Amino acid sequence: MADQEWKSSITDIGPGKIRVRGYDITQIMDKLSFAETVFLILKGELPTGAEAEMMRAILVASIDHGCSPPSVLGTRNVVSGGNPLNAAIAGGVLVIGDSHGGAIENAARIMQEWAAKEGDINQLAAGLVDYMKTNKIRMPGFGHRLHNVDPRTLKLFEIAARNNFSGRHIELCRAIEQALAEKLGKKLPINVDGAIAAVISDMGFDWRLGKGFFIISRVPGLLAHAYEEMTREKPMRQLGNRNYGYDGPAEREIP
Amino acid sequence: MADQEWKSSITDIGPGKIRVRGYDITQIMDKLSFAETVFLILKGELPTGAEAEMMRAILVASIDHGCSPPSVLGTRNVVSGGNPLNAAIAGGVLVIGDSHGGAIENAARIMQEWAAKEGDINQLAAGLVDYMKTNKIRMPGFGHRLHNVDPRTLKLFEIAARNNFSGRHIELCRAIEQALAEKLGKKLPINVDGAIAAVISDMGFDWRLGKGFFIISRVPGLLAHAYEEMTREKPMRQLGNRNYGYDGPAEREIP
Amino acid sequence: MADQEWKSSITDIGPGKIRVRGYDITQIMDKLSFAETVFLILKGELPTGAEAEMMRAILVASIDHGCSPPSVLGTRNVVSGGNPLNAAIAGGVLVIGDSHGGAIENAARIMQEWAAKEGDINQLAAGLVDYMKTNKIRMPGFGHRLHNVDPRTLKLFEIAARNNFSGRHIELCRAIEQALAEKLGKKLPINVDGAIAAVISDMGFDWRLGKGFFIISRVPGLLAHAYEEMTREKPMRQLGNRNYGYDGPAEREIP
Amino acid sequence: MADQEWKSSITDIGPGKIRVRGYDITQIMDKLSFAETVFLILKGELPTGAEAEMMRAILVASIDHGCSPPSVLGTRNVVSGGNPLNAAIAGGVLVIGDSHGGAIENAARIMQEWAAKEGDINQLAAGLVDYMKTNKIRMPGFGHRLHNVDPRTLKLFEIAARNNFSGRHIELCRAIEQALAEKLGKKLPINVDGAIAAVISDMGFDWRLGKGFFIISRVPGLLAHAYEEMTREKPMRQLGNRNYGYDGPAEREIP
Repeated sequence: MADQEWKSSITDIGPGKIRVRGYDITQIMDKLSFAETVFLILKGELPTGAEAEMMRAILVASIDHGCSPPSVLGTRNVVSGGNPLNAAIAGGVLVIGDSHGGAIENAARIMQEWAAKEGDINQLAAGLVDYMKTNKIRMPGFGHRLHNVDPRTLKLFEIAARNNFSGRHIELCRAIEQALAEKLGKKLPINVDGAIAAVISDMGFDWRLGKGFFIISRVPGLLAHAYEEMTREKPMRQLGNRNYGYDGPAEREIP
Repeated sequence: MADQEWKSSITDIGPGKIRVRGYDITQIMDKLSFAETVFLILKGELPTGAEAEMMRAILVASIDHGCSPPSVLGTRNVVSGGNPLNAAIAGGVLVIGDSHGGAIENAARIMQEWAAKEGDINQLAAGLVDYMKTNKIRMPGFGHRLHNVDPRTLKLFEIAARNNFSGRHIELCRAIEQALAEKLGKKLPINVDGAIAAVISDMGFDWRLGKGFFIISRVPGLLAHAYEEMTREKPMRQLGNRNYGYDGPAEREIP
Repeated sequence: MADQEWKSSITDIGPGKIRVRGYDITQIMDKLSFAETVFLILKGELPTGAEAEMMRAILVASIDHGCSPPSVLGTRNVVSGGNPLNAAIAGGVLVIGDSHGGAIENAARIMQEWAAKEGDINQLAAGLVDYMKTNKIRMPGFGHRLHNVDPRTLKLFEIAARNNFSGRHIELCRAIEQALAEKLGKKLPINVDGAIAAVISDMGFDWRLGKGFFIISRVPGLLAHAYEEMTREKPMRQLGNRNYGYDGPAEREIP
Repeated sequence: MADQEWKSSITDIGPGKIRVRGYDITQIMDKLSFAETVFLILKGELPTGAEAEMMRAILVASIDHGCSPPSVLGTRNVVSGGNPLNAAIAGGVLVIGDSHGGAIENAARIMQEWAAKEGDINQLAAGLVDYMKTNKIRMPGFGHRLHNVDPRTLKLFEIAARNNFSGRHIELCRAIEQALAEKLGKKLPINVDGAIAAVISDMGFDWRLGKGFFIISRVPGLLAHAYEEMTREKPMRQLGNRNYGYDGPAEREIP
């Protein structure tokens, strides 16, 4: 029995031909950064200069967060059990669920839903915070267990300002931060998940892709951990994600 | 019972502090491309300009290869079973094994072993091909089921030449291609796996990381397929990896 | 920094000691079937004779369903990419999501919610079907794409009757089948997912474990497919889940 | 393009028909235990009474080993990241690699290779231990980090004796234990992996299936851990696999 034909609009392949969203791979290799190519394959179109800068910043920002994230424990644990590199990366990505990286997705969903409503952005933010408060829902993308002020958030918004990249979702995001402070009486700063959620929403990405940007960014970090585990530790060791220390290079400056 | 302390030299974390290999994440966000950051986190040091260009080209080159690779089938099939995005990416990465993407790893291992020997590079290549022939081992990284001449390989070496990026492994790689033609009497052109193997070897990366560069590059492609499956197809459909057609944008030029 | 202590009530381990839910593993090895041990480890207590029979029947019933399920495609595809056995099983289990095996979980959730209400079981079933109809929700666990009457369902209820195993959830399940026929005017027979959902609910298992029984049962099937792929097929083959035929033993009888 | 047809000899499916290795699923549900059905689907034929008993004992023996195995950490960590049950099981199975459960596979491979040689079993065992000693290879399946004498091994051989189940591989396994003691001067008792390796080899299973029996057995244990994590712990908690205690039922007897 023949399978039913299906269609894809991503990449066209033939002998000597690889075209991503219509552009030849050799042209892409000549002209685009990896961040721009990521934008292209997910959006279907080339980014503007500002969008390319924001995509670069987003991917760079989440590349690693040390040994404590459960995804790192996942990757290292798969290596420790005696498995190949791809299984180790898969094992780490598998952990990136609703409680780990999921805030991007959820924050983007809420921002896209509320930014689509008509009206003044501050009033919308106030309405959203009231709604969350009444229904006892925690607003995802605000507050961080470790960082009082997440340095990545500030930098992301600074890069956005520098590139005149702004839109209704970033505005809403800032307005929510202020409304949370006013209505809850405590500072819940935008975290990197919330900031990324706002930026990808202003780029026009569906919130359901939210976790995806985090995964693309974090995979190289997971790979670094897999390789370190493979070359520095014994198999089947006792693994915990708190009892570690950093012994890499001291603080230094990019020239 | 307390766990034994362990060490990592990748990322140093503290309140308001995220330093990758000693560099503050905000500096990295200001100054580095994603490809450069990937180089940094895996190598521990910043790339030279030529290395940054090669890393960019490598990551861009393998971002997608249409619907036929088993990793794409893996990702789409996990979506089709009704699972979240991270499980779909994990499901695709899980497929990237010795028979799919594994040629980078194996080619890099062989090249690193033989390039480390003393002597003329052409004689080494001849010796290697003789060895493979005698032991009936297929040289990984040469020949392609679809492309007679892989356009990505030519472009990768062109970018290398343009940036004066060359080393003993790239030389060996070209010499092997010639030795294969002479000794086997048929053209087995360097494929993209072989080319990437040579380039990462000249960058000084351990061959055991080989599959990792492919995975970093391919994850955005898998994400695009996951999203297309999620938004365009019904759950639990009959899935095959041959019975599809391309219906995306026609050929176009990057301005 | 020491990790915070945590507790588990599953298995107590020490030198020469392995006790599952309080029972020594050597006693379990002497006295219990695997199905009984599965019941014990999940429920925390030994099954009655009827519960043991039902657990056996459930695990046996779902062991395999040929090559078309997406989980089989998942497992075979991971083997085809050149990966180890455990990755292949993981790749198959990863596919068992909301659209594949998820009906057990959802049907059990609905049955447990409605069976907990007071009142006559037929009136509850009628109310449930009205509710699903009004809200245009499809009742999970009823109807099958292939089998008009699922032979496993009939047998499962037959074994239940033979062992005098019955409870409010099985009654509700049968009442729903009748209410669906009356109110929708078409026969939507209980499928194996619905039957398993009713039986595990009458055993007192949380609906959130629903997919778990299916996974335990199906893993040996996935293993058989992984091994067949490994020993019978070439790597990186074109894989589809419709274009296959059966060439195993013809129909035969268990003596 | 139509996919190439492929064949499977596992399960024949049609409307109202599910036949595993030729036997109707309803007959199997009436007559076979789960362990017997596992044997059938993997071997293609029904087990003898003794084989059924051994398969039952093997599956029961490895169902769980408390919280310290890396596969348990894998499963719990995936739950902790906020993921569904099937992803949690997949995450645990993914960890079962060469260093965790791999000893069954490796021990079975060596036993099958050496038992196939002609000659006296004690001399073969002596030759094997000499070979391992000379080449500085550790014999897999002997010795245990926790148990001096693994209670599961003794019980497995006791059940084998009770059922008159014995063959060349079990004999070789015992002879190796003795040769190790004589030639290395220290007691390295057969562990449960080694014992299972010998038993499945005498059943005629390919060593490449070795890890598979462990996976089938351990999946219910992983499910119990996933459920406990889901219902007893908070998401994204700090997870280590040493800092836990047991708080389940005290020692008790199966009536």
